[in-house]
Amino acid sequence: MSILCVGSIALDSVETPFAKAERVLGGSAVFFASAATLFAPVRLVGVVGDDYPLDDLDFLTNRGADLSGIEQREGKSFFWAGRYHSDLSGRDTLATELGVFADFQPKIPEPFRQSRYVFLGNIDPVLQHDVLDQVESPEVIACDTMNYWIEGGRESLVSLLDRVHILMVNDEEARQLADEPNLLRASRWIRERGPDIVVVKKGEHGAILFADDWLFHVPGFPLEEVFDPTGAGDAFAGGFMGHIAAAGSLDTDDIRRAMVYGSVMGSYAVERFSVDRLIDLIPDAIEERMLGFHQMTAFEALVQVEERV
Amino acid sequence: MSILCVGSIALDSVETPFAKAERVLGGSAVFFASAATLFAPVRLVGVVGDDYPLDDLDFLTNRGADLSGIEQREGKSFFWAGRYHSDLSGRDTLATELGVFADFQPKIPEPFRQSRYVFLGNIDPVLQHDVLDQVESPEVIACDTMNYWIEGGRESLVSLLDRVHILMVNDEEARQLADEPNLLRASRWIRERGPDIVVVKKGEHGAILFADDWLFHVPGFPLEEVFDPTGAGDAFAGGFMGHIAAAGSLDTDDIRRAMVYGSVMGSYAVERFSVDRLIDLIPDAIEERMLGFHQMTAFEALVQVEERV
Repeated sequence: MSILCVGSIALDSVETPFAKAERVLGGSAVFFASAATLFAPVRLVGVVGDDYPLDDLDFLTNRGADLSGIEQREGKSFFWAGRYHSDLSGRDTLATELGVFADFQPKIPEPFRQSRYVFLGNIDPVLQHDVLDQVESPEVIACDTMNYWIEGGRESLVSLLDRVHILMVNDEEARQLADEPNLLRASRWIRERGPDIVVVKKGEHGAILFADDWLFHVPGFPLEEVFDPTGAGDAFAGGFMGHIAAAGSLDTDDIRRAMVYGSVMGSYAVERFSVDRLIDLIPDAIEERMLGFHQMTAFEALVQVEERV
Repeated sequence: MSILCVGSIALDSVETPFAKAERVLGGSAVFFASAATLFAPVRLVGVVGDDYPLDDLDFLTNRGADLSGIEQREGKSFFWAGRYHSDLSGRDTLATELGVFADFQPKIPEPFRQSRYVFLGNIDPVLQHDVLDQVESPEVIACDTMNYWIEGGRESLVSLLDRVHILMVNDEEARQLADEPNLLRASRWIRERGPDIVVVKKGEHGAILFADDWLFHVPGFPLEEVFDPTGAGDAFAGGFMGHIAAAGSLDTDDIRRAMVYGSVMGSYAVERFSVDRLIDLIPDAIEERMLGFHQMTAFEALVQVEERV
């Protein structure tokens, strides 16, 4: 069950309180695929310049990814530079150079058009519409976005909602999109416009999923060192969609597990720069942390309240 | 298994974006007891002025509380007034009038001194020491504190840590006490000074418990309306200690359930002003929300990772 993923493929320069990395692999599609390929094959669509170290993506091919949708063009690759604050909760953007990404027009290769699972990374909602126009009968479409599009591309973003099944955003974005501070009400506003499911990512506080008559919460995994938070949300999306595609199911049990796999992948992503930790990750480590989440959240609700008072 | 609870018994005037309440029941001991008495008998120790509507605490007596440790003195009761910000995440203190609480010297009545369960509400750590000097062989001592004592009473607070089993603080307090932004490391710093267990309350994000070789996370219960956040932390402590005392056990399974009962009681406390919602609460409502927490967090970690890659 391959997942079609369209998003940015970038080079990032990142400064944290601990260290610095120059022009390392980045972008929503790269973080997504680095996580999702540990679960299911991924078909990548994006654009890079002639400066991009495409060989560095070989680990994705080795995990069953199809990179034939990556277009290489003359010019510079999308470049982002940022510096995290001392407690890692905020960051300053030092540079955003769109390069060839500025004229990105996603072209979905013919063999990709029948993908049943689609992840629309954070790009212009007009382009996200274009992608959906090119796929034939997708069963599960998940979509990310950001404040920039909520402000500047609201109309096409809201019309996009009607075409997607799962919206994945952070808590600020959910509130901003719905213009509603309460997350329960904000998620209802969003679901009334299309998606069956809204996943709200809350960084170190985990993530919460809102559906029609149920919800599910997964905490963040407590880490002694958060090394580099870049890409955690896309790695979360990769773990989530990876499990859904591997299970071939949208049962609530599988959606719950998908939430936990998302949090597992997000927690691993932040342990090293770029996708370094995800490149090295072995299946046993995923399973181990999955069990860690279970131990950290499981309880038996067996008490007879009537007898206690 | 009665719980001895020592803390403030106050009158609160509270303004929220929605409404206003004047001189209603408040204080750490009152919120704690309003929650804990739904689980186990509580022995209250505190001081009030001659203006205090002690009859309004009859509901506690009806639930098996022993109020004979409440000293009534000439003068004014502890009065606190505050106004919450529009999103309820912050508040301004408008007035703090200590009244008779300024000279509070906890005297533990003879029949209370053999209590096995003790909750030290947020008061001067010197007084918290005094309370422990008066109890004979407590088995479980839980303790709360606040930034005021972390700054101004650090020495007696740190020496108190060596005498308590469970420290319950919010995330800012844990970080401030340990002078360490990372919660895992902050909780270790605290546990190295005495408590076996540190419970960190994170408001709408729930609470996390750190013990020697395990941890447990419970989310906040998503509510459409948080009416008045005052006392949520003490109600949490009441649900937590109430279950521990009722179960008569510090098994990890019971500690986990205690965390969830804490979150249940905290979530109910904020639905109305003062302890109004806790006065009305019926056991079935506790059980219902307990199950709600279970549905919101439970998942089966049954996947064989080896087969998926």
